[in-house]
Amino acid sequence: RRCGEVRDAIFLKVGEDWIFLAILGIVMAFLSFTMDYIIEKCQEAKFWLYEELQFSLGLQYVAWVSYSMLFILFAVGFTHLVSPQAIGSGIPEMKTILRGVVLKEYLTFKTLIAKVVGLCSSLGSTLPFGKEGPFVHVASIVATLLSKAIGSFRGIYENESRRSEMLAAACAVGVAGTFAAPIGGVLFSIEVTATYFAVRNYWRGFFSAVCGALVFRLMAFWFKDEETITALFRTNLRTEFPFDALELFAFAAIGVACGFGGALFILTHRNIILFTRRHKKLSRFLQKNRFIYPSIITFIIASLTFPPGLGQFFGGELTGKMAINELFSNITWTTGQAEDMEDEAILRHWRHPLTNVYVTLVLNIIMNFLMAVFANTLPIPAGVFVPVFTLGAAFGRLVGESMAAWFPEGIPSGDTVRKIVPGGYAVVGAASMSGSVTRTISTAVIVFEVTGQISHVLPAVIAVLIANAVANIFQPSFYDSIIKLKK
Amino acid sequence: RRCGEVRDAIFLKVGEDWIFLAILGIVMAFLSFTMDYIIEKCQEAKFWLYEELQFSLGLQYVAWVSYSMLFILFAVGFTHLVSPQAIGSGIPEMKTILRGVVLKEYLTFKTLIAKVVGLCSSLGSTLPFGKEGPFVHVASIVATLLSKAIGSFRGIYENESRRSEMLAAACAVGVAGTFAAPIGGVLFSIEVTATYFAVRNYWRGFFSAVCGALVFRLMAFWFKDEETITALFRTNLRTEFPFDALELFAFAAIGVACGFGGALFILTHRNIILFTRRHKKLSRFLQKNRFIYPSIITFIIASLTFPPGLGQFFGGELTGKMAINELFSNITWTTGQAEDMEDEAILRHWRHPLTNVYVTLVLNIIMNFLMAVFANTLPIPAGVFVPVFTLGAAFGRLVGESMAAWFPEGIPSGDTVRKIVPGGYAVVGAASMSGSVTRTISTAVIVFEVTGQISHVLPAVIAVLIANAVANIFQPSFYDSIIKLKK
Repeated sequence: RRCGEVRDAIFLKVGEDWIFLAILGIVMAFLSFTMDYIIEKCQEAKFWLYEELQFSLGLQYVAWVSYSMLFILFAVGFTHLVSPQAIGSGIPEMKTILRGVVLKEYLTFKTLIAKVVGLCSSLGSTLPFGKEGPFVHVASIVATLLSKAIGSFRGIYENESRRSEMLAAACAVGVAGTFAAPIGGVLFSIEVTATYFAVRNYWRGFFSAVCGALVFRLMAFWFKDEETITALFRTNLRTEFPFDALELFAFAAIGVACGFGGALFILTHRNIILFTRRHKKLSRFLQKNRFIYPSIITFIIASLTFPPGLGQFFGGELTGKMAINELFSNITWTTGQAEDMEDEAILRHWRHPLTNVYVTLVLNIIMNFLMAVFANTLPIPAGVFVPVFTLGAAFGRLVGESMAAWFPEGIPSGDTVRKIVPGGYAVVGAASMSGSVTRTISTAVIVFEVTGQISHVLPAVIAVLIANAVANIFQPSFYDSIIKLKK
Repeated sequence: RRCGEVRDAIFLKVGEDWIFLAILGIVMAFLSFTMDYIIEKCQEAKFWLYEELQFSLGLQYVAWVSYSMLFILFAVGFTHLVSPQAIGSGIPEMKTILRGVVLKEYLTFKTLIAKVVGLCSSLGSTLPFGKEGPFVHVASIVATLLSKAIGSFRGIYENESRRSEMLAAACAVGVAGTFAAPIGGVLFSIEVTATYFAVRNYWRGFFSAVCGALVFRLMAFWFKDEETITALFRTNLRTEFPFDALELFAFAAIGVACGFGGALFILTHRNIILFTRRHKKLSRFLQKNRFIYPSIITFIIASLTFPPGLGQFFGGELTGKMAINELFSNITWTTGQAEDMEDEAILRHWRHPLTNVYVTLVLNIIMNFLMAVFANTLPIPAGVFVPVFTLGAAFGRLVGESMAAWFPEGIPSGDTVRKIVPGGYAVVGAASMSGSVTRTISTAVIVFEVTGQISHVLPAVIAVLIANAVANIFQPSFYDSIIKLKK
């Protein structure tokens, strides 16, 4: 009985809003960090295997392809058996739930397991997936379970309006936890899930997200990944003269192009799904043999990225995280000289002896576009944000490198002429492309938080706004497109 | 008739949302830039006069005091004659209007003139005022007038709900225009004016604010103030190791202190106003002789800041903008050696031969606190944001300098030990103090946009959240306090 009283007293405290939000943030940070660790180890294992088999090209190929297939097929099987609700991003469903629709079995423990395990496995395959969307879903489940555990004692979160407040905060934590970007995360989650929004929920999301981001970054520091608390994709671009006013036209052009690109991405994705549905026979066949479609897609993608094959021409061996880090680098790829080991690795990846930087980047964009579209039609837990972000970064880098080649000494306007920074273009491109696909403006904030530099704030916001406006003419957002498909 | 058709055709286009928003943003940028220019010239004139009269200390003193008094009394008289609605910040009133209350004569052309002229004059006096709040008011009037001009042809903004959408966007533009900080501006305006908020309005505000910020920064570039488009208070802090994880405790302490400080500020401000009201005789006397109270306050403040007098001990000759730039500087004041002319000027201002940096900073904080509180009770158009921001920056710098003196070699944790960056503390302090007084979290975003550096994002957000939580226990926000006073 004494024990029960203590427990009640603790839960009385825990039931209070802010403790609940802090716990939610911290739990999500732990989960995010652990999952990142597992995913990274899985990906490293693939590269290790590939390196170890250097004696035989054939074995290397078999290992490269079968490793990815194994992980994807496991994810397909596991999510199907445990909880099919875990399939996909999760943001469209959370949007539906927050509008008041009840989706059955969507916020249960089983779905949590399916989502977490499935996500680790699908991302471990090194195929182009993201974890932002799924993480919103995971955070919402954790919040629901947490509030139920408390609710059985206090009943505070039984109330319907409290529940949706809590879920709104959970969505923010989910996004913020992926990138350790609290501000952008809160805004992004508001944009993708809400239509009307209580300002009161804003600080809840913020508080929880900051708790999460703090613990996330502290863990990176404690486990000696980083020297101190720092940004995820920290850039080191020149800040004293980040860009010339005339370069704004180039940034605006990136916005327009990313607007079209984003709309095309959404259109292609929907048409692939509609195509398989429209053909009744094909659809029935694929549903009966549910491993066939994922196998084919994975086989093709893994074969294409095989480094000694086509992969060498477009940086196929790079995972999303590695690619983003290299695309955001400060060095100018066309003309720059490597100053350290890191630079050398970057140039080796993108400067192929048979082609040049432009061909590599164009190929990278085309291949990643197709791979990201097809990969996101697979029935596994997977997000679209990071692939699209990488795509935009590659496009921005392409524009930046072209500009640097066009104006080798910089744009002559005013008294000072300074060289162009292609890394800045990559940052702007990443924000625009992810903004146009998800139809949000807050990606402009997310890029600053993940790079730790804000010198390109104006170009990024302008390009993101243009990309949103252009994409809005042709297509709904990626998430709304999925909601429509599911109706 | 032909002319009328063309005009109608143009307004048909202009009536469209996005053209309207763009025009609003651009008009506000021009207005903001022009006003900044006028204010700066007025302030420079005061310093010029002061320098010219070096031969006589007495004349210097007379010039220093009478210059400020002249400007303040002109502002008092002008706003009283033209439109008393222009008095004060404007944010509390916009909050009331956006909740559906109709305030008479509040959004008219006369009020616009009174606000703009009065603001130039009150800020020109070099007393500690801000222009953020008044600018929200100005933007709302411009939006109303603009929509009326269009409305007489089209009637699109006659509609009540459209009108409040437009005003919400205008508030965002107003804040964004003050600092050329589009993201923080939009968020700040949402936090201070809205309770429930349509996500649709978010991109409107953003679009308009970005147009404004772009034109604002482009003008700074064209008029050769800046080499390129850059941040307002650009900092140059060390980014590769901005702070050690253990320093988070110091940042949290800044948050707690700024929370108390903000609450004290609001309490003091309210009590001064209530005091003059409670004494019926005093109140009647002051109302009849409306120049007496402003004269006394201005006389005292100007006398206190007189540089050869007490002013030399707390940087009294610095205007808000200059003080912020110096407080955010990268150099460590206690131990640092000046490397260039700029550093020398900074150290000359804050290292007094008779005292030391700490005394200067403590005096600066106390004096500025009192001056800002009293100055904001004067019946003139004036904002509270910049004074409070400066106050926070000074407090943060004080903590930072103390930390740097306490750990001269940096905090030894982990393998690397690097020196403490007091400028980072100033940035965090500025965000916390302004956050606690206005009760907003977005000040954390504003500081990154105005400094152009985001390396201290996590400490700033944590400190701002803590400051908000602490201040919330004791007092409502400054704006809500004013709303209560006016009821």
